[in-house]
Amino acid sequence: MVAPLHRLLYADLVTRALQEDLGRAGDLTSDTVVPAAAQARAAFVARQPGCLAGLDLAAETCRQVDARLTFEARRQDGDDVAAGEVLAVVAGPARGILTAERVALNFLGHLSGVATVTRTMVRSLPADANTRLACTRKTLPGLRAVQKYAVRVGGGANHRFGLDDAVMIKDNHRQLAGGIGEAVRRARAAVGHTVKIEVEVDTLEQLTEALEARADIVLLDNMDPATLRQAVAQVRAAGTGTLTEASGGITPETAAEIAATGVDLLSVGWLTHSAPNLDIGLDIDLGSGS
Amino acid sequence: MVAPLHRLLYADLVTRALQEDLGRAGDLTSDTVVPAAAQARAAFVARQPGCLAGLDLAAETCRQVDARLTFEARRQDGDDVAAGEVLAVVAGPARGILTAERVALNFLGHLSGVATVTRTMVRSLPADANTRLACTRKTLPGLRAVQKYAVRVGGGANHRFGLDDAVMIKDNHRQLAGGIGEAVRRARAAVGHTVKIEVEVDTLEQLTEALEARADIVLLDNMDPATLRQAVAQVRAAGTGTLTEASGGITPETAAEIAATGVDLLSVGWLTHSAPNLDIGLDIDLGSGS
Amino acid sequence: MVAPLHRLLYADLVTRALQEDLGRAGDLTSDTVVPAAAQARAAFVARQPGCLAGLDLAAETCRQVDARLTFEARRQDGDDVAAGEVLAVVAGPARGILTAERVALNFLGHLSGVATVTRTMVRSLPADANTRLACTRKTLPGLRAVQKYAVRVGGGANHRFGLDDAVMIKDNHRQLAGGIGEAVRRARAAVGHTVKIEVEVDTLEQLTEALEARADIVLLDNMDPATLRQAVAQVRAAGTGTLTEASGGITPETAAEIAATGVDLLSVGWLTHSAPNLDIGLDIDLGSGS
Amino acid sequence: MVAPLHRLLYADLVTRALQEDLGRAGDLTSDTVVPAAAQARAAFVARQPGCLAGLDLAAETCRQVDARLTFEARRQDGDDVAAGEVLAVVAGPARGILTAERVALNFLGHLSGVATVTRTMVRSLPADANTRLACTRKTLPGLRAVQKYAVRVGGGANHRFGLDDAVMIKDNHRQLAGGIGEAVRRARAAVGHTVKIEVEVDTLEQLTEALEARADIVLLDNMDPATLRQAVAQVRAAGTGTLTEASGGITPETAAEIAATGVDLLSVGWLTHSAPNLDIGLDIDLGSGS
Amino acid sequence: MVAPLHRLLYADLVTRALQEDLGRAGDLTSDTVVPAAAQARAAFVARQPGCLAGLDLAAETCRQVDARLTFEARRQDGDDVAAGEVLAVVAGPARGILTAERVALNFLGHLSGVATVTRTMVRSLPADANTRLACTRKTLPGLRAVQKYAVRVGGGANHRFGLDDAVMIKDNHRQLAGGIGEAVRRARAAVGHTVKIEVEVDTLEQLTEALEARADIVLLDNMDPATLRQAVAQVRAAGTGTLTEASGGITPETAAEIAATGVDLLSVGWLTHSAPNLDIGLDIDLGSGS
Amino acid sequence: MVAPLHRLLYADLVTRALQEDLGRAGDLTSDTVVPAAAQARAAFVARQPGCLAGLDLAAETCRQVDARLTFEARRQDGDDVAAGEVLAVVAGPARGILTAERVALNFLGHLSGVATVTRTMVRSLPADANTRLACTRKTLPGLRAVQKYAVRVGGGANHRFGLDDAVMIKDNHRQLAGGIGEAVRRARAAVGHTVKIEVEVDTLEQLTEALEARADIVLLDNMDPATLRQAVAQVRAAGTGTLTEASGGITPETAAEIAATGVDLLSVGWLTHSAPNLDIGLDIDLGSGS
Repeated sequence: MVAPLHRLLYADLVTRALQEDLGRAGDLTSDTVVPAAAQARAAFVARQPGCLAGLDLAAETCRQVDARLTFEARRQDGDDVAAGEVLAVVAGPARGILTAERVALNFLGHLSGVATVTRTMVRSLPADANTRLACTRKTLPGLRAVQKYAVRVGGGANHRFGLDDAVMIKDNHRQLAGGIGEAVRRARAAVGHTVKIEVEVDTLEQLTEALEARADIVLLDNMDPATLRQAVAQVRAAGTGTLTEASGGITPETAAEIAATGVDLLSVGWLTHSAPNLDIGLDIDLGSGS
Repeated sequence: MVAPLHRLLYADLVTRALQEDLGRAGDLTSDTVVPAAAQARAAFVARQPGCLAGLDLAAETCRQVDARLTFEARRQDGDDVAAGEVLAVVAGPARGILTAERVALNFLGHLSGVATVTRTMVRSLPADANTRLACTRKTLPGLRAVQKYAVRVGGGANHRFGLDDAVMIKDNHRQLAGGIGEAVRRARAAVGHTVKIEVEVDTLEQLTEALEARADIVLLDNMDPATLRQAVAQVRAAGTGTLTEASGGITPETAAEIAATGVDLLSVGWLTHSAPNLDIGLDIDLGSGS
Repeated sequence: MVAPLHRLLYADLVTRALQEDLGRAGDLTSDTVVPAAAQARAAFVARQPGCLAGLDLAAETCRQVDARLTFEARRQDGDDVAAGEVLAVVAGPARGILTAERVALNFLGHLSGVATVTRTMVRSLPADANTRLACTRKTLPGLRAVQKYAVRVGGGANHRFGLDDAVMIKDNHRQLAGGIGEAVRRARAAVGHTVKIEVEVDTLEQLTEALEARADIVLLDNMDPATLRQAVAQVRAAGTGTLTEASGGITPETAAEIAATGVDLLSVGWLTHSAPNLDIGLDIDLGSGS
Repeated sequence: MVAPLHRLLYADLVTRALQEDLGRAGDLTSDTVVPAAAQARAAFVARQPGCLAGLDLAAETCRQVDARLTFEARRQDGDDVAAGEVLAVVAGPARGILTAERVALNFLGHLSGVATVTRTMVRSLPADANTRLACTRKTLPGLRAVQKYAVRVGGGANHRFGLDDAVMIKDNHRQLAGGIGEAVRRARAAVGHTVKIEVEVDTLEQLTEALEARADIVLLDNMDPATLRQAVAQVRAAGTGTLTEASGGITPETAAEIAATGVDLLSVGWLTHSAPNLDIGLDIDLGSGS
Repeated sequence: MVAPLHRLLYADLVTRALQEDLGRAGDLTSDTVVPAAAQARAAFVARQPGCLAGLDLAAETCRQVDARLTFEARRQDGDDVAAGEVLAVVAGPARGILTAERVALNFLGHLSGVATVTRTMVRSLPADANTRLACTRKTLPGLRAVQKYAVRVGGGANHRFGLDDAVMIKDNHRQLAGGIGEAVRRARAAVGHTVKIEVEVDTLEQLTEALEARADIVLLDNMDPATLRQAVAQVRAAGTGTLTEASGGITPETAAEIAATGVDLLSVGWLTHSAPNLDIGLDIDLGSGS
Repeated sequence: MVAPLHRLLYADLVTRALQEDLGRAGDLTSDTVVPAAAQARAAFVARQPGCLAGLDLAAETCRQVDARLTFEARRQDGDDVAAGEVLAVVAGPARGILTAERVALNFLGHLSGVATVTRTMVRSLPADANTRLACTRKTLPGLRAVQKYAVRVGGGANHRFGLDDAVMIKDNHRQLAGGIGEAVRRARAAVGHTVKIEVEVDTLEQLTEALEARADIVLLDNMDPATLRQAVAQVRAAGTGTLTEASGGITPETAAEIAATGVDLLSVGWLTHSAPNLDIGLDIDLGSGS
C-alpha cells in the first residue's frame, strides 16, 4: 500500500480551496436556510467504478470546515471501487457537511480520476513486462504533490518532482552545451552525488554518446517500437545499468506494444494533465447526525 | 472579446507554480549545462487545433522567471488556432526560457483545454437557441478563478464563483427548511439584495413551488427533454422572468437536444473537472535571443 | 438570528492582529511580571449600551493566545446589551488572559460599534416601511468580511462584497459605454446569470433608460425625497420588479424621511467607515482561574 | 514633516485590500462595460476640510492595480486641505482608475480621518503646554502601523506599538506580582536595556511607589485635574526625569484642561478606534488620460 | 527562569522548516521502509555539555509532524546539561519520530549553541561586575526572535529587536544631521515617549555632547579599557542615569577586562551570528512507542 | 563558476528578514535624523579574508528597501577576497542605504562564512584526491536553500536537500524493515526511478549487504581510516559503481587523512550549522550618492 501523503503537503491546499469557495461571506445557502442545530450523516459514494484516491484530503476538508464533523473511511486509497460503493461517511452538523461537500468532492473526484487512468494503463501493460508507468512535470499548477501521490496510488511511478531533483538534458541543453558528453560532464561536476542525470536521445547515435557519458537514465523520445527495441538492446549490451525510458505519443492503445520492447519506463503526461474526473457523489441522510 | 483577468487574480498562482517546479535548488539542468550568456528565441506553437486561453499567465510566468525575457503575443485568448500556429514568442536569456517552459506550457495547455471543450460544446448548440453553456463549482482546487476565465474565453458563461455569491437551494436544503417556500423566504430575508436565489427542482410540482416563491433561477435537475420543455413552458407562463437552467448528464451528444427545449442555461461540470489538455509546445531557436 | 461567520473567514485576521501586537518579543510585561502558574477569571463587560457583535472573534483570539483558556459566552451576537452587563467570561492562565485582552477588545469594540450604529439607524426607520438599510464597499481595508457581518448582526443588509459579485454601472461607466442601455447590454452579455445589474441614476430620465434596459436594481443617487417618491412610483408602474436604492447624504436625521418615500434600500457608507467603538472592558478577577 | 512610512510596512496590506475587493472575478463592471483602450484622468478631491494622510497608500493601490497608471501628488501628507482641493491626480487606462478608486479612497479617507481628529485635538491644547497627544494600542485589527503613522501625520505621538516594545505594568500585573516595586524589579531584570518601564497608578500613594521603583513613565489613570496637578508636582519633586501620562476619559472638551495640569502626555484610544472617515472623492475626467 | 517564547512567535518558523525538509514528496525513506504501525520511543540526548534552549520548538516540530506524538521534556530551557543527559522523550508512531528528527535537532542544536556561548561568556565576567552581556541585530535572517530568546535563556540581555524599537544614532547619522545634539533633538521630537535614544560615541568629546543631549544610552565603540574607564567615570559624574554600553572586538578573552571598567553592557554580535551548534542527538528505542 | 541562485528561491526570505528588522514602525533613526534628500555612496568591504557569497541577496535587500538604490558588484560570489577589498558599491538615498545595511550584511556575512569554511576544508584535502566535500541536512531553519548555495560557492557539494529527493536508510530504518536488503527492496519498489538510494553502514558486513542490495551510495559512518580503506576496496571490487561517503567526526584536522582513504565524499554538518560569520562591513561615504 502506498504511504499516505504527509498532511503538511496538502493542508494549505485544502485551506486555499475552501477559501476559494467560501469567498468573503461563506455558505449563504446553508447558513441561512439550514437550522444551526440540524445534524446529518452523509456517505461519499462512487457513481462509477475506479481507483479511489484522496480520502485524506476529503477528511481534512471536513475537519477544516467544522472540527465537530467525524469522518470515517470505509475504503482506502488504492482500492478498486464499484459504482454504488460507500467510500466514507461523514457525520455531524448539517451545515458543515453541506459547506464541505463540493470541495471534498472536487479533491476526491480529481485525484481518483488521476489514479484511475493510471491504474487502467498500468493494467494494460503485458503481465510479464517489468515496465513501469511514470508521470511527468506536466501537472496542473499548484497540484503537483497531490497529483503525483494519486499516480502512486494508481500504481504508477513518479518521475522527477521539479527542476531541482534530477538533471534532464534535452535537445536544447545538448546543443547549448556542445554535445551530450560535454553537457553530462558539466552537470556531473556541478550537482550533488544524490542527483541522477538523464539524457534525452532521438537517435541511436545519440544513445551511444549518452552511454559513453554514463547517463543514469536515457529518455528515448518518440522512437517507434523497432527502434526502441534496438535501443534497449544497446543499453543492455553496454552493461552500465542505465535505465531506459520511452516517451512521446504513448496512449492506452500503444502502451502495451511499447512496454513489450523492454523499456524500463513509459512516461505519460496525460495521467496528470488530462485525467477526467471520477464521478463520486455525496448522499446525505438528514436527521441522523453523530 | 473577453476582458483579461486581473493580474492580482493569478500572480500568486504563477508564483506557487514556479516555486513548486523550482523546489529548493532551482533548474539544475539549465543552470549547470547552459552558458549564462546564451540567448534564445522560442515560439509557443499549437500542436493541435483549439481555442487559445492563458497567454497572460504564460507571459507572467516568463516575467517572474526572468524580468529580462520579452514575451510577444502573436494571437490572443479566444482565437481559434490551428496546429502549427505560433501563439507567442519569448526571447532573452536561454536559461530563463528553459526554466519557464514547463510551467508556462502547463498553464497554456490546461486553460486552452478548458476553453476548447467549452467552445466545442457551445458550437454544438442549435444556432437559433438562446441557451448559454455554464460552468459550475466543480473546479480543480486552487484554479477556480482561472478556469472560470477560460470558460468565458471559450464562449461559456460563469455560474456562481463560490458559496457566497448566490443562493442555491438544493434538495437537502429544502428538506431541512421544510419546503421550498420556507427555504426561499429564509434566504431572501437574510441575504443582500444583490444576491439571486436559485432553486433546484426535480419535478414540475416543485417547479410550481419555486415559481410561487419567486426564485430568480430554477435548476431543472436531471429532467428528460420532454419534461424540460414542459418546465420551460410553465416558467414562461408564470411571467416572472425566472431563468431556467438544466443540469445533470449533459454531454456533447445530448447538449443540442436539451438546448432545443428552450432552457436558458445548461450547466456542465465536465468543462472544468475533466477537460483534456490542449497540446501546445515550445520551439526553441537557439542563438537568436532578443 | 444571524448565522455565525465561518471561522475560515476570520482566523487569519485574528492571527495577524495578534502578531501585530506580540511583535518579535511577545508580551514583555505579563511574561516577566506575572507568575507562570497564576490563574485568573475575567469578564468582558459592556461599559455602555449597544448591540453586541464579535464574540466568536474574541473567543478565537483567546484560543490562539492560549489553547488552555476557556471562553464562555454569556450573551450572543445581536443582543442589545446594557452598560455593566457581562458578555463573556474567560478563565485560565493569567498571562494568557492579559496577553489576549487588548486584541479581543479591539475586535469586540469595533464590531459592536458597527452593529450598534446599524441597529440604531434601522430602528429610526418608520415601523411600516419595508426599507432595508445596507452597507457599502466603503469598509476599512482588510476588515470587509467582518464589518459586513457586524452590519448583518445589527439588522442591516449587505450590499455587494466586492467588485465581482454584482454589476454597478455608475456615471463614468455610462459615459464610457455611450449610454445606460448600451452599458447594461454589454454587462448582461458578459457576466453570469447569477449576477445582478444595478444602475446608478441621477435623474428621472436616466431612470427611464435604466428600466428600459431591465436593470435589476436602480441606485437613486442624491435625490431629494420628492424626486425619490416620483422615482419609486415610476419603478412600480414599470412592473419590472426592479429594486430601488437611495444613497448619498443619508444620515440618522434624514433616514426616516427617505425611507418614507418607499425606496427598498438605503445605502450608507458611514456604518462601516465611521462607526465609533463600543466601549467594552475586561474585568479581571485574579486568583480564580478555571 | 513626518517621514513616509516604508513601503514594506503597507504593501501587503494594500494587496490584501485589493484582493478583498476584486474577489475571484475582478471588476465585473469596468471590465465588461468600459472599453479596454479608454484613457482617463481623475482627481482625488477633498469634500471636507481636514488633515491629509495616506497618499502613498493611494499611490500604491493605483500602482498595484495597473502599473501604467501615473499618480501625481499635489499636496502631501500632513497638509491642511480645504473642501474642494485637489490632493492628487491619477491618469491612464480608465479601467484601472475605476478599479482602484474605492480601495484608494478607503485608505485615504480613513487615514485622513485619523490624522484629522488627531490634529484637531492637538490644536485644542494650550499653546504654552508641552503636552503631547499620544495614541494607544486600541487600534483596528491589521491597521496598527498605518493608523499610528496617521497619528504622527496629525501631530500626535505614538505610544508603544505592541506588547513587546515597552513594559506597561497595570493594576492586574501589580497585584499578581505583589506590589509595584516587585513588579518593576522583575521586569527590569528580564527585559533589555532599551526598553522603558511604565507603571499605571491610580493614587498618589501608588505614584510614590512607582517613583521609588524608578519607573521611566507613570500612567496617571482617571485622575481629576486637581489630583493630576499634585501628581505632576510630586514627580517633578522627585527629580527622576520620569514622564507623566494621563489617560482615561479624555475628550476634545477636557483635553485642554488636563494638558494644563502639566502632564507630559495625554493618551487617547479614540484617535484610532473611533475616528470618522474624512470625505474624499474621485472626480474622473474621461477621455483625458495620460 | 526565562519566560517561554509565545507559540505564535515560532509556529510559522517551524512549519517553514518542516516544509523545507519535506519538500514535495515527504519523507521518502520512512514512508516506504518503516511499517505504518511501528511505534517507537526516542530520547533527545546531549552529546556535549552546554546550556539547553529550544525544547518548545522541538516539541512543536513533533506536534506538527504527527499530532499523535507525545513529547515529554525532562529538562528545561536554561538548564546546564551534561554529555549523555536525556533532555526530552518523544513517543508514538516511528515514522513520525524519524520524520521530525532532523528539524527538531536543528532547532535544539542551534538555539542551545547560542545559549551556550552566551552563558559561557556571561560566566567569564567578574562576579562583582554589574555588567550585562547583550546581543545585537547581527542575527541570522528569519531567526531573530528565536535567537534573541536563546540569548535570554543563556543569561544574556537583548539589545533592540529591530530598527523600530529604539533609536541608535551612529557615526553616519550624526554627520548627516550635523552633530550629536541636533540628531538627538530630531529623534526626540519625532519618536514616541516609550522609545529610548542611544548614541554611538568614539571619543570622550563626543561623549560630552551625547550627555548634554541627554542620550538614554551611550555606545562606547571600540574604546580601550582605559578610555572606557574614563568614559564610565564621566557618565557617572553627569548624574543623568545614562547607561553605558561597550562594543567592538569583544571576545571571550577580553570580556572580563572590559566588564571590569564598569560599563553597564557589553554587546556582542558573535553570540548570534557565529555560535557553533551544540551537539544533541536522538536515540531511538524501537518497538517501545507510547 | 557556480550558477546564481534563482531569485524566486530567496526573494521571500529577504522580505521576511527586512520585515523582521523594520518591525511595525520602520527605521526610526534614519527616518527621523537623516534628511530625506541626502544621498550617499557606500562600499561593502571585507574586514577579513575569505570566500565571498551572497552578493545577489545583498543586492535584493537594497532593491527591496529602495528601488532607487543602485547596487554594483565589484567582485563575484566564489572570489577569494582579502581584508580591505571592496566587494560591492551601493548608491542612492542615504536613508535607504542605512536601512538596508544590517540585513544586507547579515546575509553576506553568514553566507560568506559558510562558503569560507567550505573552501578552507576543500583546500585541505589532498590535491590528488577525488574526494568531494558535502554538506548535510543539518542546516539552520529556513536557510537551507541559501546555505546549500553557499556550500557550492565554496567548492563543496550538496547532499540531498530534504527528505524527499533521495532515500537514506539509516540504522533505525534498517531495523524497522528487518535488514538492509528488505529496506532497499521496499524503497526501490516505491520511489521513482530518478531517486537514488543510500544506505548507512557501520560495519563491513553491513557493507556487503548494502552492495548486494545494489545501493547507489553507501554512507560509511564513523569508521576509522583503516576500515574506510577496506570499505573502499570492497566497493571497488564489487564493480557496482556505488559511491562511498564517509561521515562522523570529520574535522579540518582529520579531513585530509579520511580523504586519502579514497572515499568519494566527506559529509560534514559543521559547514552549515556552525560556520562563523565572515566579517564584512559597510563604509559609507556621505554626500556622494548616485
